[in-house]
Amino acid sequence: MARVSQQHLDARRRQIMDGAALCFARNGFHATSMQDVLKEVDLSAGAVYRYFRGKDELIQAIVTEVLDDVRAAFEAVGKEPSPPPPHELVGTVLGQMLRSRPALQVDGVFYFPRLMVQVWTETLRNEGLATVLHEGYAKVRDAWVEIVKGYQEAGMMRADLDPDAVARTMIAAVQGFAAQQALFGELPVETLQVGLRGLMSMGDPAGS
Amino acid sequence: MARVSQQHLDARRRQIMDGAALCFARNGFHATSMQDVLKEVDLSAGAVYRYFRGKDELIQAIVTEVLDDVRAAFEAVGKEPSPPPPHELVGTVLGQMLRSRPALQVDGVFYFPRLMVQVWTETLRNEGLATVLHEGYAKVRDAWVEIVKGYQEAGMMRADLDPDAVARTMIAAVQGFAAQQALFGELPVETLQVGLRGLMSMGDPAGS
Repeated sequence: MARVSQQHLDARRRQIMDGAALCFARNGFHATSMQDVLKEVDLSAGAVYRYFRGKDELIQAIVTEVLDDVRAAFEAVGKEPSPPPPHELVGTVLGQMLRSRPALQVDGVFYFPRLMVQVWTETLRNEGLATVLHEGYAKVRDAWVEIVKGYQEAGMMRADLDPDAVARTMIAAVQGFAAQQALFGELPVETLQVGLRGLMSMGDPAGS
Repeated sequence: MARVSQQHLDARRRQIMDGAALCFARNGFHATSMQDVLKEVDLSAGAVYRYFRGKDELIQAIVTEVLDDVRAAFEAVGKEPSPPPPHELVGTVLGQMLRSRPALQVDGVFYFPRLMVQVWTETLRNEGLATVLHEGYAKVRDAWVEIVKGYQEAGMMRADLDPDAVARTMIAAVQGFAAQQALFGELPVETLQVGLRGLMSMGDPAGS
């Protein structure tokens, strides 16, 4: 038998995760069977179960990977001495995410926001997934806290405000924006960028 | 037979909607039966079906009412000549919402964020609900656009930015914050308020 390269294994894993993510985004977690996933990725049960024991393992792997990508992207920016302002940062990171997962686009529509909303609902009743989401989110928040501290140290933001509260609020704006994309159709990232600039331009009356 | 007063009818309707909202928030829309709702509100099928023909009508009525409450609260503020800054406004409106729906709290936990996340998922596959959400959201956005124009006219915000983009972003921050409350447990509104002030305090470098 020919030896299977690591590269091949990784590509197969990627193919299964993207196909499953598409199924979950399209039809929801509960309405999707492993049979649907096999059909989507055009592989045998044996080939798929070698990587994932079932739907729960698949959705956990997908959520872990996405949150890890988001964290890594923000962490890279947080290491810069003077991080770019929020509207630039959000544009860069969301743009990277879109480009890195071409398989999650169908007819030009990016399926990730739909997946996100459904993962949230599933999380309310699936403890394993809740743990994965909780841990992944905590890491994204840590990365954002570093960015906020960077703003404060560079004199770009009031230094007396809790960095954790600002981090949660920045993440909330991105989460809510993605929810709007899932619910009301594609919205360009520029909309969020303009909105953040509007908020920033207000200044803080009490701080001035 | 005694005539039933309008007040009584309204109170009954309120009781059914709050009970159903609690069921949906707790167990999700699909896992909740009309039987569960009857049990929760302790009424007969005849009494409940007089008001609502089924789950679909119930969830649409709940979503319509909540979005209408949110719109009315923001609209009232938008009419002021110089509207309070976003962090004050969000604190006032979210505080009002909490106080106005005491029946949606169980053991001190407010169930509305859990309901919201589940309504979003249901919306992806329920056209009637999608229409209701779309229309309700458009009205909330209109109210926010007026507030943003108020900021711009009062010289509190850069006047060259699209008010609609700022409105969407403000709503996104509130939506994402509520999602965090649903997913990770209670978070005080003050966290969002501090976060908004942090963003506002940055100013807009390109605008200055």
